[in-house]
Amino acid sequence: MKFISYFSRGEQVGVLAGDKVIPLQNNLSVKINSMLDLIENTTADLLDEIESIMVDNKITSLPVDSVKLLAPIPYPRRNVICLGKNYEEHAREIKMTKISDTGIPSAPIYFTKMASPAIAHGDDIRFSCQNTCQVDYEVELAVVIAKEGTNIKADEAEEYVWGYTIVNDVTARDLQGKHKQWYKGKSLDTFCPMGPALVHKNAIPFPVELNIQCRINGELRQNSNTGNMIFDIPYIISDLSKGMTLKPGDIICTGTPSGVGMGFEPHKFLNNGDIVECYIEGIGRLVNTVAVI
Amino acid sequence: MKFISYFSRGEQVGVLAGDKVIPLQNNLSVKINSMLDLIENTTADLLDEIESIMVDNKITSLPVDSVKLLAPIPYPRRNVICLGKNYEEHAREIKMTKISDTGIPSAPIYFTKMASPAIAHGDDIRFSCQNTCQVDYEVELAVVIAKEGTNIKADEAEEYVWGYTIVNDVTARDLQGKHKQWYKGKSLDTFCPMGPALVHKNAIPFPVELNIQCRINGELRQNSNTGNMIFDIPYIISDLSKGMTLKPGDIICTGTPSGVGMGFEPHKFLNNGDIVECYIEGIGRLVNTVAVI
Repeated sequence: MKFISYFSRGEQVGVLAGDKVIPLQNNLSVKINSMLDLIENTTADLLDEIESIMVDNKITSLPVDSVKLLAPIPYPRRNVICLGKNYEEHAREIKMTKISDTGIPSAPIYFTKMASPAIAHGDDIRFSCQNTCQVDYEVELAVVIAKEGTNIKADEAEEYVWGYTIVNDVTARDLQGKHKQWYKGKSLDTFCPMGPALVHKNAIPFPVELNIQCRINGELRQNSNTGNMIFDIPYIISDLSKGMTLKPGDIICTGTPSGVGMGFEPHKFLNNGDIVECYIEGIGRLVNTVAVI
Repeated sequence: MKFISYFSRGEQVGVLAGDKVIPLQNNLSVKINSMLDLIENTTADLLDEIESIMVDNKITSLPVDSVKLLAPIPYPRRNVICLGKNYEEHAREIKMTKISDTGIPSAPIYFTKMASPAIAHGDDIRFSCQNTCQVDYEVELAVVIAKEGTNIKADEAEEYVWGYTIVNDVTARDLQGKHKQWYKGKSLDTFCPMGPALVHKNAIPFPVELNIQCRINGELRQNSNTGNMIFDIPYIISDLSKGMTLKPGDIICTGTPSGVGMGFEPHKFLNNGDIVECYIEGIGRLVNTVAVI
């Protein structure tokens, strides 16, 4: 099942049925006011109840086009955790630049991204050239954690996954280089588009091998498969949770494939009016327009 | 005034009067359930009201030794923002190691630290040698943000400060190096001791020039003054907020002076039973014991 957050007198959660949204607030045996509520209260019974609602077709649904989408988790409780250079071809294209000189990583490169709020499908990526003039796109599969865990074993990692969404890890390359550590260049306002939906893991076979693409104004720039990650999802969850407790609602972005703007010569950074379309098979399309202010 | 968070049927906020704590919940005209509540509701009138309470001495106080202290902000809403290498002598001692080769930074180095929960004065710094065997201390002045701001001018930065506390930016040096970006090595559970109190800025003259020290088992290891920062507080707030909105309750750790364990030859990392005492003039002593599990 695909879940969305949307705005209608406050933050709401709904389940997608084709082009309809079925509101979950006040329609379940458990009170669900936000996606984080849903994640924390998910049981097999609750999922069955939601499926029944969809089959019964008794609750008034809304056309998805009529609601203001929010990022699936618009206010994550902790920064989004990201991996750098987790696809080999991307690691090579980055090695050719000045951002990094370490080539293919021997251990995952973890950093965080300020994402409170995260922006939704349809929102603008906004920035001023006074702050950055080298803004780049990075389509990524984001894993959302279901339950608290520390020192999780790789072969038990799937139990800790709630579901998957798309994050565009928008990056100011000039700031990424200038500040050495990547946090600031990754964390400008509007630099965390997320969505359009959060897909429960029951709908995605494990291991996760999904086509992943990014198009700029229709031109295919990134085109790979999440099966090509250097460090796969079980490894990441296991390694990241060593001595560090993961919590329900934590978001882990698993890295981007090759084809980012900085990988081209000359660079192809984002310009005013550009339409950035991030796609992952089984999840959907996350589309945002660039507004240089 | 010095404010503390403590546990007594949930998270509580109190103001310190000598060795007494005056509870603020239910005793003010505004309902204050947490330090984040206090920060978001602070006005000159509210501060006056709290001062009056202290003078009137009509509210039943508690001996500070009788309460379980919490970190001043035990659950920050976003990761703690930290600066790397913001004291020249520390930048030099780190340059001599393998963590970094860039010497004195020409721009602030920002990264984040998972601090949800942050631990309190008196709590143990706990880690397993299966995850890290090179744990280091870093005493730092932490600035807590009062109100939302973007593109803040340096000469207006003080308006955006609510107050100051101490953070020990505990660091697993082996993980810091292994993962290249520093987030994981900075973010193991219990690696964010914070406190003992959050001191409102009215009690600290600006610019902030406070003696800052760290002792291990009584031995003075770090000894400097916050006036020695390479990038000072107005610069940091101005630079960090360029295109990135700071919010009330955000915590910025301003870097550590020289004398960390890694700076010694041979290294002096933390061992089981070590007592780590971080001190900043005007704020207090943040003491934690190391428990290797």
